[in-house]
Amino acid sequence: MIEHLLSCDDLDAESATLILDTAAQMAHAMSGREVRKLPTLRGRTVVNLFYEDSTRTRVSFEAAAKRLSADVVTFSAKGSSVSKGESLKDTALTLQAMGADAVVVRHPASGAPHRLTGWLDGAVLNAGDGTHEHPTQALLDAYTMRSHLGRLEGLRVAIVGDILHSRVARSNVSLLRTFGAEVTLVAPPTLLPVGVDTWPVDVSYDFDAVLSRLDVVMMLRVQAERMNASFFPSAREYTRRYGLDAHRMSRLPESALVMHPGPMNRGMEIAASVADSARSVIVDQVANGVSVRMAALYLLLSGHKGGAA
Amino acid sequence: MIEHLLSCDDLDAESATLILDTAAQMAHAMSGREVRKLPTLRGRTVVNLFYEDSTRTRVSFEAAAKRLSADVVTFSAKGSSVSKGESLKDTALTLQAMGADAVVVRHPASGAPHRLTGWLDGAVLNAGDGTHEHPTQALLDAYTMRSHLGRLEGLRVAIVGDILHSRVARSNVSLLRTFGAEVTLVAPPTLLPVGVDTWPVDVSYDFDAVLSRLDVVMMLRVQAERMNASFFPSAREYTRRYGLDAHRMSRLPESALVMHPGPMNRGMEIAASVADSARSVIVDQVANGVSVRMAALYLLLSGHKGGAA
Amino acid sequence: MIEHLLSCDDLDAESATLILDTAAQMAHAMSGREVRKLPTLRGRTVVNLFYEDSTRTRVSFEAAAKRLSADVVTFSAKGSSVSKGESLKDTALTLQAMGADAVVVRHPASGAPHRLTGWLDGAVLNAGDGTHEHPTQALLDAYTMRSHLGRLEGLRVAIVGDILHSRVARSNVSLLRTFGAEVTLVAPPTLLPVGVDTWPVDVSYDFDAVLSRLDVVMMLRVQAERMNASFFPSAREYTRRYGLDAHRMSRLPESALVMHPGPMNRGMEIAASVADSARSVIVDQVANGVSVRMAALYLLLSGHKGGAA
Repeated sequence: MIEHLLSCDDLDAESATLILDTAAQMAHAMSGREVRKLPTLRGRTVVNLFYEDSTRTRVSFEAAAKRLSADVVTFSAKGSSVSKGESLKDTALTLQAMGADAVVVRHPASGAPHRLTGWLDGAVLNAGDGTHEHPTQALLDAYTMRSHLGRLEGLRVAIVGDILHSRVARSNVSLLRTFGAEVTLVAPPTLLPVGVDTWPVDVSYDFDAVLSRLDVVMMLRVQAERMNASFFPSAREYTRRYGLDAHRMSRLPESALVMHPGPMNRGMEIAASVADSARSVIVDQVANGVSVRMAALYLLLSGHKGGAA
Repeated sequence: MIEHLLSCDDLDAESATLILDTAAQMAHAMSGREVRKLPTLRGRTVVNLFYEDSTRTRVSFEAAAKRLSADVVTFSAKGSSVSKGESLKDTALTLQAMGADAVVVRHPASGAPHRLTGWLDGAVLNAGDGTHEHPTQALLDAYTMRSHLGRLEGLRVAIVGDILHSRVARSNVSLLRTFGAEVTLVAPPTLLPVGVDTWPVDVSYDFDAVLSRLDVVMMLRVQAERMNASFFPSAREYTRRYGLDAHRMSRLPESALVMHPGPMNRGMEIAASVADSARSVIVDQVANGVSVRMAALYLLLSGHKGGAA
Repeated sequence: MIEHLLSCDDLDAESATLILDTAAQMAHAMSGREVRKLPTLRGRTVVNLFYEDSTRTRVSFEAAAKRLSADVVTFSAKGSSVSKGESLKDTALTLQAMGADAVVVRHPASGAPHRLTGWLDGAVLNAGDGTHEHPTQALLDAYTMRSHLGRLEGLRVAIVGDILHSRVARSNVSLLRTFGAEVTLVAPPTLLPVGVDTWPVDVSYDFDAVLSRLDVVMMLRVQAERMNASFFPSAREYTRRYGLDAHRMSRLPESALVMHPGPMNRGMEIAASVADSARSVIVDQVANGVSVRMAALYLLLSGHKGGAA
């Protein structure tokens, strides 16, 4: 088993499947219990090290760790030594010395979680770094697809929206390819990264052209702050060309899933009626996120001797 | 038993009495123990969803939940998806999916807790919504009166100050009437709501005129930000007419209680000597708040099957 | 045993030694266990009352309390009643009423922790007050010296930097003198307090002159916000005269320790190569901080009957 969870590129099909299978066991263990708590990680300390705000992801990891009986400590950059200019290295050494068994890190700089591994004995879990990766998001997405559609291999998945800035897209492309799914990226040319032609995906500028052959359509969040940055002409134009509305949804195959990593801009990249439709598995994604993070913490901490203290 | 705790209007005398009696049992169980912790809610997750800051109320609920061995997760609006424009509905669906068994919510919009109940299987506890209600405050106030004076029926209670903006006043009026107490609202006309003549209370503009016949005088906090909003001429004038000083306290019956929901503006609506006097039960209110919130969480979660995850 | 931990002046050699010995037992108990958690403080509530940001200290106390199975509640001044103008007294009475068994307080006003003891039955631990004291820092520093050098009596310790504004310096001077160590303060005249000539220490303006005879050199953090306040001419000048670089380190005796309370300004008061050298025990200080705080909480709470609730 891997020591850290930094990038979906580090996961082969076997280790990724192990995480999904373990997550399924976690979900099953929780659903069958009066007391939804396992003693597995009692006495272990999980640190949430968040240099960017993300209540959803932080709370999901926190709930996962607490269900495994770990102690959770939140170390947010706001008001911490970080704002006093402490280096990432010294923060890492501090957490290590305090006995952190696992550090869940979100950081605006791509690669920060990887650098942390050089200074920590404990496990590092990437909860989103810059525009690089967000591996637990891809794992919970894969879990959700597999549980609804019974398989991942051969699935035709479209990821739609701001691919350029999306770590969710990067992690999903990597993991879905590992599982043998076929990925189509759908975006305006301004929101595609340079070099996307070397990625193992199809690319389309025309959402309507791909709808009818999809098993999964995954809508990405539009970052409002990029709206005026000349990436696309206007919100209305974006919605018209790349939004998932009821009409587009009607052209999907009957069994196709609608996904979104949240938080949604209802009415922008996804219509409210689509978000709330029977095909939407958006709420399942959130629930599966807790199971997947329980699995990741469990597998990583079993492979580690724990912090230094 | 009720499923949620949204408004004192939802409580009849029987269910309100059950909460107070349960709170008394909680207080008794805690005082008799070496380890002040009950295993009752082990494995349950209580989410504090706070769209307004209130450390006192949040910590009181957190302490209550932890004494019942629940896991507590704080989801504050600052820096959350909320600030990215996520709707209340999507936040609710997210908490539901993460397995929240109870959501304690404070929100600037009246009615927000009620709307939450449409999206959550778990219990919703209103910790203050707009100018609407703050039911656990009224319950802890009633608990405090009952424990000191032995009864609630027939008590003569004055609520003094900014009735117009006070959810504490609204919840207290409702609950005290349910218990058969008589309520007098004392305030300048500018700080009384339109339609107060239809409330089941007496109204007075003259604090001095009512003092001698009160069992309880409950002072409301003056919101400094309203000081210059033409609601009353000046701080000094407000204190002179509606502040509780030693002289006014001396005109209360000997057994009368002085209450305040906190935080106090000492020297403004209440003199320091009054706040610290033997008649003041303000500290008891805080202590009773933990017991009442333990009771509310216990009763609501016993009636629920728990979150969805 | 003492009831509170406010100042190193309150500790005689016997009680200080008891804390260090207990910390050693805590460290040993943790290192030998599969589950790094003791049931000692189960059911007790530790409140972190922080009026200044300090993630490092807060997290260290939080980790210490959780390893002893206490419940930890954070009451930060930001967004609390404090920002609504509530007095320290009323905050104290509130925490007392909520059943706080121990309050860990950081406050910008010197003496604030002492004032808290007048209103709380529980134990008060000073986590830094103004420019006054930070006793657990001095205790973890002493622990670190003793564990590396085998003794404290007779050790020659230099404390280098902004003595004027440093509570760390004050607490260390007091505790080190109690243990019979010899302290030299090294700083430019502008960063020494008035009356330092009455302290039981040597004073030097010349770092180079004292290097060769030291057992320990403790570097203090330079507060960037004081850089332009005419305390010293420039950052470069400060580093040249009072920074610990590789050259100065080479002039220390071979067994001498390099310490820093963190967070460091690498390249300012301490060179990166020095911070990471084999002589640096900076990371040990952090680890020992958790053990020392476990010991302090354990000893103080054993001597208390607990909060009021």
